[in-house]
Amino acid sequence: MSTCFQKCDIRPFVVEGQQVGLIKSDVLKHLEKYPEVFCIRDCEQTKQGLVELNPAFRDYNERTEQLEKVLRNLRSEGLFPALQGWRDEYFEVKSERRALLKMERAATPLFGVRKYGVDINGYVRHPTHGICIWLQQRSNTKETWPGKWDNMVGGGLSVGFGIKETAIKEAAEEASIPYDLVKNLVSAGCVSFYFESRQGLFPNTEYVFDLELPLDFVPQNSDGEVQAFELLPAKECVERVFTPDFKTTSAPVVIDFLIRHGHITADDVVDFTQIVELLHVPLQSLYTYRARLEQAKKHQQNLPGDARNCRCGSLQKKEY
Amino acid sequence: MSTCFQKCDIRPFVVEGQQVGLIKSDVLKHLEKYPEVFCIRDCEQTKQGLVELNPAFRDYNERTEQLEKVLRNLRSEGLFPALQGWRDEYFEVKSERRALLKMERAATPLFGVRKYGVDINGYVRHPTHGICIWLQQRSNTKETWPGKWDNMVGGGLSVGFGIKETAIKEAAEEASIPYDLVKNLVSAGCVSFYFESRQGLFPNTEYVFDLELPLDFVPQNSDGEVQAFELLPAKECVERVFTPDFKTTSAPVVIDFLIRHGHITADDVVDFTQIVELLHVPLQSLYTYRARLEQAKKHQQNLPGDARNCRCGSLQKKEY
Repeated sequence: MSTCFQKCDIRPFVVEGQQVGLIKSDVLKHLEKYPEVFCIRDCEQTKQGLVELNPAFRDYNERTEQLEKVLRNLRSEGLFPALQGWRDEYFEVKSERRALLKMERAATPLFGVRKYGVDINGYVRHPTHGICIWLQQRSNTKETWPGKWDNMVGGGLSVGFGIKETAIKEAAEEASIPYDLVKNLVSAGCVSFYFESRQGLFPNTEYVFDLELPLDFVPQNSDGEVQAFELLPAKECVERVFTPDFKTTSAPVVIDFLIRHGHITADDVVDFTQIVELLHVPLQSLYTYRARLEQAKKHQQNLPGDARNCRCGSLQKKEY
Repeated sequence: MSTCFQKCDIRPFVVEGQQVGLIKSDVLKHLEKYPEVFCIRDCEQTKQGLVELNPAFRDYNERTEQLEKVLRNLRSEGLFPALQGWRDEYFEVKSERRALLKMERAATPLFGVRKYGVDINGYVRHPTHGICIWLQQRSNTKETWPGKWDNMVGGGLSVGFGIKETAIKEAAEEASIPYDLVKNLVSAGCVSFYFESRQGLFPNTEYVFDLELPLDFVPQNSDGEVQAFELLPAKECVERVFTPDFKTTSAPVVIDFLIRHGHITADDVVDFTQIVELLHVPLQSLYTYRARLEQAKKHQQNLPGDARNCRCGSLQKKEY
């Protein structure tokens, strides 16, 4: 992955000394028009090109507002298809345990920000068919992946909501699952994957929940985003998930479920180990600017300890 | 990881053009004494130092015998603590779908060969304590990790046995689990991790099975390798697994179980995503000699297509 990264000239996006994103050259060239917001420079220590949000911005709110002004400009210029899906829904941009700013959900692929979502595998234990899984078919009017088959319930993690809380909220909105059923939700881990499209970069993590449902329960959509639900035996699910009718970014969640419940096994599938490893791509290895900076500093030894003291100011002047 | 790899000068171990292992310099210097078995050279295309098993060996058997002769020599010289644990048990060394040779189990860490094992999480659903997990305490006379706490059942994958077949065999030997219980075994994925010790390199994958047991079943050891079994509520298991009394290499299996069954959750643990990713280290990324060779060849274009045609012979002469 790192080779491709070097080839494609993807730069770290740095906020408050922490790498929170990845910026490709097609986005970079438009950010260059906003030197008061982005400091585009080569780091003296790591020798690597990077994009830094102006460190003069004082706090969460100022960072959020300044970035949003740029995003609204870029959107009105109609340059990025990703921004046509603007939703007025915010994702929190965090580093380690600290929230640094919030960003319009549609913009996150342009900045290669790690995106988090929740997914519920709804299933029943059928007396003759064994484990059967509820799938949803997305509405034809949805901005992303219209008409594709998808997990029973899924949604992005927005500012102000916990992980299980989001799962419960989405279960009610997307499938009308009442609280006395959703209380049986079992947290079952997460899947992480990375892909690129013309919309941008998707370093995504989905928190995964399993929910065993009674045989007579039928999900009903209540937010207009689903056109159908279907209950499929696990074996048929294995087939459906590998067809082009299935939403690519939801497939890992279903494959993970099928593996955890013994419907895809190491004795049956030659590349089993590799598949399991690919469902858990170590995305944190894409955001290592800070670590590399500290390593470079250690190497040089004679430089001060704060990531911000790397003559950013003088380089900034040189840049613009 | 790759930075550490470059620093420590770990070389690919190549058999029939495929990388199957990793060799550190402390092992390399002893292999240099066997130029009729190992071709130690720099690859012309990738510019990387590598150790190749003599490509003149004709087949699986000849490769196995020639390597074993060296291993028995090294063992008798008493140079490597790993070889003191010689068991006369073979691991198959494979690349993609092809078995290339078999190697004494105790020697695999010296060659950084990917090692595969099986583990069974035995658990009960207790009416008041919820999910409880059976752990074993290893015998004090075991060669590796004596006296440490461990999963209920675990064992290495040896030549000639399937994955589930190994799990069933080990369940009988280590915990006397009869077939009418072990038939409920559920394949639940695998964990992959990498560590180094004075024994060598451990790029390990454990195939994981869950087995729900009746409340009144108590495991009994039948091969003398276990001194005690204990049934622990999941919550106490979370604590035990992070103590020094727990076998380090078995901890990932228990942590994976606790995550899959909702006892370690993303809302409770800040580094949850990173933990899940670390339970599934993409080990295949350590064995990329063939891919890099092909990339280098593509780059140069004017060279032939077979990995074996890279003037190994002439370089061999130079080496010795």
